[in-house]
Amino acid sequence: MPPRFAFTIHARDGAARCGEIAMQRGTIRTPAFMPVGTAATVKGLRAAEVKAAGADIILGNTYHLMLRPGAERIARLGGLHSFMGWDGPILTDSGGYQVMSLSALTKRSEEGVAFASHLDGSRHLLSPERSIEIQRLLGSDIVMAFDELIALPAAREDMEAAMHRSMRWAARSRAAFDGGGDHAARAAIFGIQQGGLDQRLRAESASLLRAIGFDGYAIGGLAVGEGQEAMFSVLDYATGQLPDDAPRYLMGVGKPDDIVGAVLRGVDMFDCVLPTRSGRNGQAFTHDGPINIRNARMAEDLSRIDADCPCPVCHPATGASRAYLHHLVKSHEMLGAMLMTQHNIGFYQALMAGLRTAITEARLGEFAAGFLARYRGQPAA
Amino acid sequence: MPPRFAFTIHARDGAARCGEIAMQRGTIRTPAFMPVGTAATVKGLRAAEVKAAGADIILGNTYHLMLRPGAERIARLGGLHSFMGWDGPILTDSGGYQVMSLSALTKRSEEGVAFASHLDGSRHLLSPERSIEIQRLLGSDIVMAFDELIALPAAREDMEAAMHRSMRWAARSRAAFDGGGDHAARAAIFGIQQGGLDQRLRAESASLLRAIGFDGYAIGGLAVGEGQEAMFSVLDYATGQLPDDAPRYLMGVGKPDDIVGAVLRGVDMFDCVLPTRSGRNGQAFTHDGPINIRNARMAEDLSRIDADCPCPVCHPATGASRAYLHHLVKSHEMLGAMLMTQHNIGFYQALMAGLRTAITEARLGEFAAGFLARYRGQPAA
Repeated sequence: MPPRFAFTIHARDGAARCGEIAMQRGTIRTPAFMPVGTAATVKGLRAAEVKAAGADIILGNTYHLMLRPGAERIARLGGLHSFMGWDGPILTDSGGYQVMSLSALTKRSEEGVAFASHLDGSRHLLSPERSIEIQRLLGSDIVMAFDELIALPAAREDMEAAMHRSMRWAARSRAAFDGGGDHAARAAIFGIQQGGLDQRLRAESASLLRAIGFDGYAIGGLAVGEGQEAMFSVLDYATGQLPDDAPRYLMGVGKPDDIVGAVLRGVDMFDCVLPTRSGRNGQAFTHDGPINIRNARMAEDLSRIDADCPCPVCHPATGASRAYLHHLVKSHEMLGAMLMTQHNIGFYQALMAGLRTAITEARLGEFAAGFLARYRGQPAA
Repeated sequence: MPPRFAFTIHARDGAARCGEIAMQRGTIRTPAFMPVGTAATVKGLRAAEVKAAGADIILGNTYHLMLRPGAERIARLGGLHSFMGWDGPILTDSGGYQVMSLSALTKRSEEGVAFASHLDGSRHLLSPERSIEIQRLLGSDIVMAFDELIALPAAREDMEAAMHRSMRWAARSRAAFDGGGDHAARAAIFGIQQGGLDQRLRAESASLLRAIGFDGYAIGGLAVGEGQEAMFSVLDYATGQLPDDAPRYLMGVGKPDDIVGAVLRGVDMFDCVLPTRSGRNGQAFTHDGPINIRNARMAEDLSRIDADCPCPVCHPATGASRAYLHHLVKSHEMLGAMLMTQHNIGFYQALMAGLRTAITEARLGEFAAGFLARYRGQPAA
């Protein structure tokens, strides 16, 4: 029987770590990138295609799934894994981010957040207890604590108050999780550090979370427009404030160069809609930086998106030319979004594999410098 | 070296035939259903997925491809096959149907049809010579003669005039094809019988086409709203008006029961957007008739679309439940359209395989009666 949750660090290189998280539904190689499966699907890809790209774990969105098709319905149907045909681990967010960014008529209190659905205006409440209950109904493997997010920029006292409320909610989330019976014996729960760009608040938040005790620790409230430099300066100290023997998860990040910089600073897990969303919009990631497949110079370009990418779309024989992808995306053909997404997810997973190997071989600095120089150099288009 | 075009009938059962067309790019098992790859993609499916569903040949649309990305561009890029990654035979239509149904400001003359693109209003001309040239530039394996279609209902004299013009254009198409050099040595050309619902006009059209001589003969001008009964009464005599030793292709047909009835009447080839288009709209074909996956009763239905369908979406272990497909389609998720299309194409190909086996085993009557009774019986939803 695999363990409930066992994080093992196999190799270190500076602050970076390469390891694995063993869970009942499978092992997650770290550093890991989790494709986002918002509404029980990584948009445009079959579950088997996500797996084949190299993903060990995907993310599901509590907010979207509670509204449609509904957490109780998914539970009746046997849980999110069998519903969507993904048998590996699933991390579910708490709904806290989407409830602030997507819903209307939100009303916050110490109890939680009341809101109206962006789909049909129906009224709902998300609280630490309800968020954890939903994540349990979904059958989540890694449950996220429910926290409070505030719009930035915010006054320091508002930031501090939100952080403290989030820490009280983290304790309630932990208690709700522990009261979840059988689910608590199979799943894990992560706390989320808050505190914005303030080192003292971050330290206090980390200390409060450690006192509660979690299986892993997320760094929240970043990648919200502060810029890469500001984000990296927080990471310079934030990872060290969190336990060394637990995974560190940087939520909502990011661009390939964000990920490389964060791994260098000791982050183990990532999620982001960028590879899927930008794929649908015609942006492809390459070792030479992002390219826009809609660009006219792609129209007769018979090369692959990236000759150094191992994904099926870049396969020299059975892949697709930039010219074909250009045509498909310009023609709004579904296949264009499907193939661009498949490439981007494959590119991200290959990057994570490269980072893991580089850490294992103690040459992460060299790998990162080489990757970033080429990525930020002359763009291919 | 495979032959340019060799049609062999392996078995007969009443008017129905089971055989194969050997061509340089592969063998087409008949009766055959050709998925429609309008704009160089069968919408929502990779070429390999179309092949895996059992399709030997797909159809490409001259009208769409000439406008975007352009026939000359596809030729510069190496032809339609390598452009879209489909290495089997491709049949291209002549553009005659779409130019009447999609374009604006059409102006007909004996020369051809001048029209404005539905995409950008640019002016173009389609004539027998230009249509054949475009099909050659695309690298088509089976080229269709360019014919004139008129809006129905039409007066008998207009119908007769259009048929005669189509036959003059058929001769010009044949001449243009024969003048195509190397392409004519590798590809085939089909003529198209016209004449509406008039047996005498159909006989005259067939006789004129046979005098020109084609590799195969299409039955055109049906499936345009006349209803199944009227269509079948034309087929009752039309197939017999065409050569016995050449494939007969019923254009734009159809529903599964249309196909069964047409095979019984001696048709060998079909194409239709129905399985792809209706899949995108939430309609799935089953042995018990079509179902609408958006129906509320699907929301918690854990069964497959059709337990008797061999397609990957209906696979008992790795397929998708009706409940999941309901959720995806209701949520406008790309994966819903992808999986519904994959099922419908798989269902159609399985039907063709069943028809071929039944003819081979001389039990087509029994197979057709059984299929139709169940298909038209109590709908599953």
